Formats: sequence, C-alpha cells, structure tokens
Amino acid sequence: MNDMKTYIETLGQKAKAAAPAGAALATDTKNNALAAMAKALRTEKASLLGENAKDMAAGKAKGLTGAVLDRLLLTEERIEGMAAGLEALIELNDPIGETIAQWVRPNGLEIARKRVPLGVIAIIYEARPNVTADAAGLALKTGNALILKGGSEAYYSNLAITTVLRDTLKKQGLDENLLQFVESVDREAVSILLKMKDYIDVVIPRGGSGLIRFVVENALIPSIETGTGNCHIYMDQYGEIPMGIDIVFNAKTQRPAVCNAAETLLVHKDIAADFLPPLAEKLRSKQVEIRGCKRTCSLLKTAVPATEADWETEFLDYILAVKIVDCFDDAVAHIARYSSGHSEAIITESYSRSRRFTQAVDAAAVYVNASTRFTDGNEFGFGAEIGISTQKLHARGPMGLNALTTEKYVIYGTGQVRK
Amino acid sequence: MNDMKTYIETLGQKAKAAAPAGAALATDTKNNALAAMAKALRTEKASLLGENAKDMAAGKAKGLTGAVLDRLLLTEERIEGMAAGLEALIELNDPIGETIAQWVRPNGLEIARKRVPLGVIAIIYEARPNVTADAAGLALKTGNALILKGGSEAYYSNLAITTVLRDTLKKQGLDENLLQFVESVDREAVSILLKMKDYIDVVIPRGGSGLIRFVVENALIPSIETGTGNCHIYMDQYGEIPMGIDIVFNAKTQRPAVCNAAETLLVHKDIAADFLPPLAEKLRSKQVEIRGCKRTCSLLKTAVPATEADWETEFLDYILAVKIVDCFDDAVAHIARYSSGHSEAIITESYSRSRRFTQAVDAAAVYVNASTRFTDGNEFGFGAEIGISTQKLHARGPMGLNALTTEKYVIYGTGQVRK
Repeated sequence: MNDMKTYIETLGQKAKAAAPAGAALATDTKNNALAAMAKALRTEKASLLGENAKDMAAGKAKGLTGAVLDRLLLTEERIEGMAAGLEALIELNDPIGETIAQWVRPNGLEIARKRVPLGVIAIIYEARPNVTADAAGLALKTGNALILKGGSEAYYSNLAITTVLRDTLKKQGLDENLLQFVESVDREAVSILLKMKDYIDVVIPRGGSGLIRFVVENALIPSIETGTGNCHIYMDQYGEIPMGIDIVFNAKTQRPAVCNAAETLLVHKDIAADFLPPLAEKLRSKQVEIRGCKRTCSLLKTAVPATEADWETEFLDYILAVKIVDCFDDAVAHIARYSSGHSEAIITESYSRSRRFTQAVDAAAVYVNASTRFTDGNEFGFGAEIGISTQKLHARGPMGLNALTTEKYVIYGTGQVRK
Repeated sequence: MNDMKTYIETLGQKAKAAAPAGAALATDTKNNALAAMAKALRTEKASLLGENAKDMAAGKAKGLTGAVLDRLLLTEERIEGMAAGLEALIELNDPIGETIAQWVRPNGLEIARKRVPLGVIAIIYEARPNVTADAAGLALKTGNALILKGGSEAYYSNLAITTVLRDTLKKQGLDENLLQFVESVDREAVSILLKMKDYIDVVIPRGGSGLIRFVVENALIPSIETGTGNCHIYMDQYGEIPMGIDIVFNAKTQRPAVCNAAETLLVHKDIAADFLPPLAEKLRSKQVEIRGCKRTCSLLKTAVPATEADWETEFLDYILAVKIVDCFDDAVAHIARYSSGHSEAIITESYSRSRRFTQAVDAAAVYVNASTRFTDGNEFGFGAEIGISTQKLHARGPMGLNALTTEKYVIYGTGQVRK
C-alpha cells in the first residue's frame, strides 16, 4: 500500500513535470509524433499480437464472456485501426493557443482568453486495448500529459502499446513521461490515483456504470462522467408513422450495445393503435423483445409486461420498453424522471411540439425527427471523440478535442494598478 | 439525522421541480422580478436590519472577531448595495437561449449548440449576508433553481433576505422554489446536501479554504472551487523599477485581504539591489512586513527571515514574502511549485520574457506589467461575478453569468437514421 502510494505519486510527479513542455509543443512537432506513433504500431504489430495473446489466454482461463473476449482481442486489422486513428488526428485543428476572445478595457489593459491544455489527465478504462492508443493520441494533440490505468484483463496488451508509444515519443525528442501507464492491476492503484489532486487536473472514466460510479464517489480530482444512456423516443400523435418506424428501428437495432441506442419508446395514445403493430412487426425481424405497459400489452400480443425496473434500465440489448402516454406532457414528465440526460428524441410534424420538446427536455442531445444514434463525435463532425459527457459541467454531449482544454486569461498591461 | 435527510431531500425535489420553469422564463419576466426584488429589499429595510441585529448580538456574545462582525453587519447602505446589485443584473445580456454555433451535416441534420441553465445550483457560503441577494439574482438571471446554505452566524439575516425574495418571486407569479434557503445551522445539512446528486447539478462554495476543502472532499455533486490566491509578482532584470514599485505596492496594499492580492515577490538577482530598497521604503508607509530569503535579508535590514511556510501562505495581510532568484527559469519554477493557479505577474520590458512567462505559467490569469488586483469580474468587464475559479474544469478565473450555464445540442432532422 505504501509502496503503491509512492509509485503512483511518482507517476503523478513525472506527469506534472512533463506537462509544461507538452503545453508548449508546436503543432508540427505533435503531428510528426502522431505519424511516428502510427508507424511504430504497424512495425511492432507482431509483438503487440503476442502480448495480446497472453491476455486472451488468461481471459479464456478466467472464463470471460465471448463479448468481453471480443473487446479484448487485437487483430492486424484492429492494430491498423489504431494507427489510422492516430493519423486521423493529424488532420484536425490544433486547439491549443487559440485566442478565443480579446478585448481592451477602458484603462488600457488588453485581456486575451486563450485555449491551453488541461495539464495532466488520467483516464481509467476497461477491457478495450484500442482506447490506449486513442487516448494517447488525443492527449498528445491537445498538449496534455496523460496517465493511463487500463483494465486488468488487457494488462499485457496495454503495457505493450504504451511501451511502443513511449519509445516513439523519446525517439522524437519528446518527454516520454507525457504518456505513462500504471503498471499494476491492483484496484488500490485507482483509489490512490483518484486522490492525487496535486498532480492530476482531471480524471475521465471510460467504461461501465460501476467504474463511473466508483470514480465519481472516490475522486478528489474533478472528473468527467461519460456514457450512461437511457435514451427515449417519443412518438407524438402528430408524428409520421413510416418515419417513426424507421427511426425507432434504427435507434434500437442498428447497434443496441452502445449508449446512444434507444431503450424506451413513449407513444401518444391517439396514434398507438396505428403505430405500434407495424413497428412491432418490423422489430420482430431483429427479435426485439417488447416490454410494454398495460395498454401496450393489450395492443401487442407479443409484448411482455414491463416492470418499474424496465423504465430505469439501459438494456444495451435487443429489448425495448414501450409505454403509451395520454399526452405530450406525460411523455416529457416520464423522460424527466427516467432519462440519464444523454439523448432524447421526438417524432412530430407539429411545430409547437417540436419547440416545446427541445426546450423542456434536459439532455445533452435532443432530437426532432432523427435517430438518437447520431450522438457521436464523428457524426457531429468533431473528427475525434473522447467520450460522451452526461454531466453538465465543463463538457456536455460528444467531447471533441476542446473538452481536453481549459482557458487562461493573459493580460497585457503598461503599468496599470487598481484604483 | 433522518429528519434532516428528509428535509434536505425535499428542498432538492422542490428545486428540481422548479428548474424547468426557471429555464423557460423570458428575459423580461426575469428582469421584472429582479427589479421587484430590489424594491422589496428597500421596502423591508427595517425588518432586515432588525433580524441582522439578532445575528450581531449573538456574534458579539460568541466573541466573533471585529473583522467577522464587520462582514456580518447590515446597514442601510449595504442593503441599498444589495438592491443596486440586483438592478445591475437587469442590464446584462441574458445568456440563456443563445445559439453558440449551428451547422449542417452532410446528411442534412442541422445541429445547434444552445446555452441553457445548469439546472439546480447549491451555494454554500460563510458570514456575508449580501451573498444571499447576490447569488439569488445571478441564479434567477441565468434561469437556475438555487439552494442556499449560509453560515450559522448570519442565520437570521439570510433567512430574512430569502423570505423577502421568495415572497417577491411569488407575487411576480414565479415559482418561489426557484430560491430556497436551508433553514438549519447544523453542519450535517451541508454533508447531506453535498451528496444529493439526483437533485443538484453543481455546488459552489464561497468562503475560506476550510469550507472549500470540505466541499471538494465530501461532494458527490460536481463542484466549482473558488478563491484561494497565493499570487506572485516576478520582477525581471529587464523590468522598469518605478513601474515595478507601483505594481507591487498596489498588488500588496490596495486591499490585502482579497484573493488577488500579491503574497510573494520574486526578484531577479541583477536588479535586486536597485529595486528592493526603494520598494521597501514605499511599503513601510503601509507597515508591510517583509519576510525575505537570505539575500533579501542582507539587502534589507528591516526584513525578517522567511520560512518554508511563508512561500506557501496566502497571508491576506500586510505581509510580503520576498525571494531573490538567479534567473527567469528559477522564478517560473518557484511559481509552478507554490502558485494556487490564481493570478501571476511579470514586470519586464523584454518581449521574449513576456511571451515565455505568459506561456509557461499555469494560472487562471497571467499578467505582464499590471497589478494582480485586476482579476475580478467587473475589472474584466463581465458586469457580474459569481466568484473566481481556481480549477480548470468548466470555468477558470473570474466567473460571469456564463459560468452558471451549460450547453445542449438540439438536432433538427427530417427522418435521418444512422447507416
């Protein structure tokens, strides 16, 4: 425990020491390093696959599920994907150094708001080793020092990837401590990391709700909550039925395991009888289970009765909760009660309802007549995504490079003193 | 304890229920309410002074210091100041509803980033009752619901002010629960408040470092850290001596008890002998105690030796720590080690040094040739100030109305689904 504390503190000190140089890196230098990192991943493909095989063997021995093993697996194609992801960052604008605003005060002081790196970022994540390269690239492009703590299942894969990337930083003449990896699978390491306010500016958990809750409850460092999406679609009585069917089908089935997939459908009572049967038939093509309120179950013989827990659950599966509501306000109230503040949609041709919905619903992304599946950095046109924030402070919704920056006021004077 | 939990939870529920209506208020409605609140404070002056007298009597009996009693005291002039503060908010732009950016994606989706209220804000503060009216006005102007927890010393004053303001909201036809006051002096109330993630979106502590630390360590709700300022001025060897003397004298003595006052002076060794003696003489006019490093003490007979603690301390008093440094980099390193990230200044005529300093120093406000005392919402031209953030997330430096807002993406579609 004491050894662990010393170890983690040393990582923090090294990161804090590396941060100022990271903040001062020119865009060309960062882009050259990103290109070199991509190249190194390709060159070291064989050894990365070898280290990943250790994780896969241990995972199978431990009895990890097929889904977890799939997330853990590295292939030539996936390594190429990581390299291409690093290269894609080169094309993005470097946000650091931007003057967001600049103005002159009556006393002649000139005040500039400038965009600067956050400083030291810690990212705590679960099984997917591709997050390692992804996070390293995002942190480098934004001039931040990064400490990574990956899941124990992917330990050897993550260690191998960070070793390749650190070596590349060094060869490029940069401080390799801009990227550090916690070489421990002990959960104690996370608890210690979360308290290191003196060295770390922000912690971002990337993973399931258990991890996120643990971070929020234990961190003394400011954190950015990402991920949980209990997303709703409200089919208004003024919605177009074919459009509603397409959107619900897409939002539920196009990729059900992700946070922007729809989990609950609310339907206005006046359109339910016309809307639900053809929708249910389309959903049957993907074996979607419908868990319905009483009225839904009497309309759809294939529906099973929903429990209170179903309204609260992010199924991440081929399951859709369906509730018939008496009016628009009941739909909004249901969303206010159960929404995780991620993505919410209305299907309507009513101008007034579309405006009332987007104003009344409190979520990161509120849609009119489109699938919730678009809540995504690439779909929004950000080029890169750190995650999707479901909190209201600092960043909300898909986080692009700017979410890894803060501001600094630079004030140019000529001897001004306060009167 | 259980009763307290129920009570605080009820406050949270009422605030959350009031928040959507607050978010939807038109600017005119909010401004009319601010005007009515200002008028009501003036009308109720006598009763406010009467309630304040109870707090003052209790404070004297408890043996509170003169400084604390002064902060606690309400006078006709101070009540007028609170009213005028509310009226000043009327003139400010309403940030809510602003479309920060709007763009169209290749698939035709139109994405708008809109400014919306945070939702429910809790502010925890210490003795000054004027914060009550101030915070209520800022929250109303930004469409947020507010829960206030004031210090026990100002209990009757705060309760009286909030009662007047709540009555005014009601008379204006608004939900009085947009403003609530925790009617308890029990510290347990704060602990419970800080855990109410389901109802409160952000907590802002306004007070001393003990309060701020307590909030950061105990809150499950995201918090915004304000206040602590261990501010430095670095007198470069290329600085102009008369300008340096004016700025240090101003930053130290114009109002030493505030967070943007200077606490430590760093002086380049090549200018120390010319700069420090005339500066010390000027500082003597305000009885400023100089706590110096060895070299400073040998130059200034009136200086007392500084201890390690002096470099770390926000004196908030007529005390200045002075250190002679060998070079620019040593000054930057000292600041990196001891700064609280509030305000830092360099006095120099060197173009290169001015640029290196503003880039290398990591603080909310970095000055060239001006007093640190300008780090203030009004001095920056924001019109109002919620506090000065020393954290990097969400808001940094003086916080204007925008610091009490978040964003929402509104996406207008025509039936788009994800491919």
